[in-house]
Amino acid sequence: MAQSKRLTAGITRNNREMADGRTIRYYDTAGQSREAVDQRPVEEQPAIGELRLDPLVNEWIAMAAHRQGRIFLPPKELCPLCPTTGELLTEVPESDFEVVVFDNRSPSLRPPIGDWALPDQVGPDTDTGTAGGKCEVICFTADHGKSFKDLTPARVRVLLEAWIDRTEELSHESYIAHIAPFENRGEEIGVTLSHPHGQIYAYSYLPPRVEKMLAAAVSYKSSTGKILFDEVIAREIRENERIVAQNDRWIAFVPYAARYPFEIHVAPLSPVADLTGLTAEDRDAFPELALEVMKRLDGVFGIEMAYIAAWHQAPVRIGRDVLRLHWQITSVRRAPGKLKYLAGSESAMGAFIMDMRPEQSATQLREVVL
Amino acid sequence: MAQSKRLTAGITRNNREMADGRTIRYYDTAGQSREAVDQRPVEEQPAIGELRLDPLVNEWIAMAAHRQGRIFLPPKELCPLCPTTGELLTEVPESDFEVVVFDNRSPSLRPPIGDWALPDQVGPDTDTGTAGGKCEVICFTADHGKSFKDLTPARVRVLLEAWIDRTEELSHESYIAHIAPFENRGEEIGVTLSHPHGQIYAYSYLPPRVEKMLAAAVSYKSSTGKILFDEVIAREIRENERIVAQNDRWIAFVPYAARYPFEIHVAPLSPVADLTGLTAEDRDAFPELALEVMKRLDGVFGIEMAYIAAWHQAPVRIGRDVLRLHWQITSVRRAPGKLKYLAGSESAMGAFIMDMRPEQSATQLREVVL
Repeated sequence: MAQSKRLTAGITRNNREMADGRTIRYYDTAGQSREAVDQRPVEEQPAIGELRLDPLVNEWIAMAAHRQGRIFLPPKELCPLCPTTGELLTEVPESDFEVVVFDNRSPSLRPPIGDWALPDQVGPDTDTGTAGGKCEVICFTADHGKSFKDLTPARVRVLLEAWIDRTEELSHESYIAHIAPFENRGEEIGVTLSHPHGQIYAYSYLPPRVEKMLAAAVSYKSSTGKILFDEVIAREIRENERIVAQNDRWIAFVPYAARYPFEIHVAPLSPVADLTGLTAEDRDAFPELALEVMKRLDGVFGIEMAYIAAWHQAPVRIGRDVLRLHWQITSVRRAPGKLKYLAGSESAMGAFIMDMRPEQSATQLREVVL
Repeated sequence: MAQSKRLTAGITRNNREMADGRTIRYYDTAGQSREAVDQRPVEEQPAIGELRLDPLVNEWIAMAAHRQGRIFLPPKELCPLCPTTGELLTEVPESDFEVVVFDNRSPSLRPPIGDWALPDQVGPDTDTGTAGGKCEVICFTADHGKSFKDLTPARVRVLLEAWIDRTEELSHESYIAHIAPFENRGEEIGVTLSHPHGQIYAYSYLPPRVEKMLAAAVSYKSSTGKILFDEVIAREIRENERIVAQNDRWIAFVPYAARYPFEIHVAPLSPVADLTGLTAEDRDAFPELALEVMKRLDGVFGIEMAYIAAWHQAPVRIGRDVLRLHWQITSVRRAPGKLKYLAGSESAMGAFIMDMRPEQSATQLREVVL
């Protein structure tokens, strides 16, 4: 792994080792050198967790018991994602930064040691596995009080480059099957650190929803010869009524069968399998559209919306000819003071009930004055 | 549909029509006559909703836009699930009741009119369907301040008989594919009425989680010749360390690959496909075990736990030889003041991360002094 690397659009990456052996990566626009040393005492790394098969649905559950004690909504002056200033030694040794990505201190998934494979799935006789994979934290800015939507377009461009770089590098690890960068925002959905940041989960198995998307795309291809997601986009463009924002390279829409009160899918108009496939033009056109979408979302009720924004990519080694990169933003906020909860039907049966028509939420999002 | 019916264990059912044409069913132990008339003005019934296919995963989403305005946590003196007393005209015209089941006033799914079928699934070209099915509300007691765990064993026996009766009757409707009685408890998971009650969702399609359980059970049967759930129970009995409660007819355990901090599965030791298959002995032995489980759950932290308790049954017409009745109780409560939230990994990717080992929560549940 190179210590420093020149990426596209003049962005550089510098890797440094943290006190406990984890890696932090600085993504910068001005070729800054990043020499600050992590001066914290070394803490022991938690052990790798277990992977257990739920045989009733054949899904892996990662057991990470060490995560119970993790830090919960610290006051701003103790934020571990702020830069290190004065007495407070944080996860980021430098006194300022643009975008950083570092290995998660309480990872749900960890790189396995030595030879490693998933256990064979044989119902309740399936062996317990180890929770292989990798979890990283990505900070969007050094400014604790900001949100994604407050970033400059130039900063979103750096963020995108960091997501691309991590996808590219993690794809080379033999134990990684799928890479999902996502952001959770809002205490309503359990966010424990309010500093603007996201996470990158690199799984050693196909997450169940990805497995299902893959099966649907494969089946559609074999019966029609077409790529499912491309037809979804074609339909949204044809019907037009759920499009929320658009530019030359990207489109954002509320999907026809949205399952959350506010749900927006964002996709490049020239389809690609994952983030690494985006052209220079796609990369440069993303920030404008991404910022517009996030501003529209917060504009609907004039409050900060809780949301999950997750990149769906093709898995690392399979399905790359049928699955397409897109960004799914889902919010459980139905109205000021009202959330959608996943209860009996959604949680126990997996059957979603929507109280709002997607055409209505698309109209509300379009009508926000920016 | 018979107006009154004698069920097992001396329990009777009396049906009455509500002012707006909905049906209310009284389940009683003393052969009470139930003649009180619903004196409320007639309100228009909401129209049937839409069913839209999410082609990315081939799952139906029910769109019930009329549910937006439903009542939210009314004060006790305006509770629509209390019996009618004096001025307050509620959903239950009688001045007292044991267990009642009535058609939901804001149903997510409604009986379709005339010929009806699900649209063919053809990806993004799938037609919009109508949200056929039936949603019912089941009140456990007239006492607003009680919980399931405070019921007498005799009352739980009536409740079980009502669940069985509804499953039996709804199974005869040609448009119903699957029946799921469940209880949501706790404002933390969005419960809008605190009166002790549950719901019965009868779907016109297989809920996604049921579809997945069916596929796993069929595949297991074809490769091993065995019934998956029976082997799961055999393993829990063999390993013993996750069993929480047990009697002659029923067993309760934390599953090996639990996905919630407190999760308990309850199953009859003589396996059956659905509630209607339970023998007289099974039915009579259920209340004791069910009450013990719910008391243990509330006893762990000495607080009322938010939970979803859902009956998993075999679908009405298929999979009856491979799927088994069981009751899944899941709680998002990790500790007093701490909830488990479903964020990026669980919600966007479907990949569950558990912070607590099932053996630990099983021990905590067993150690509760009743």
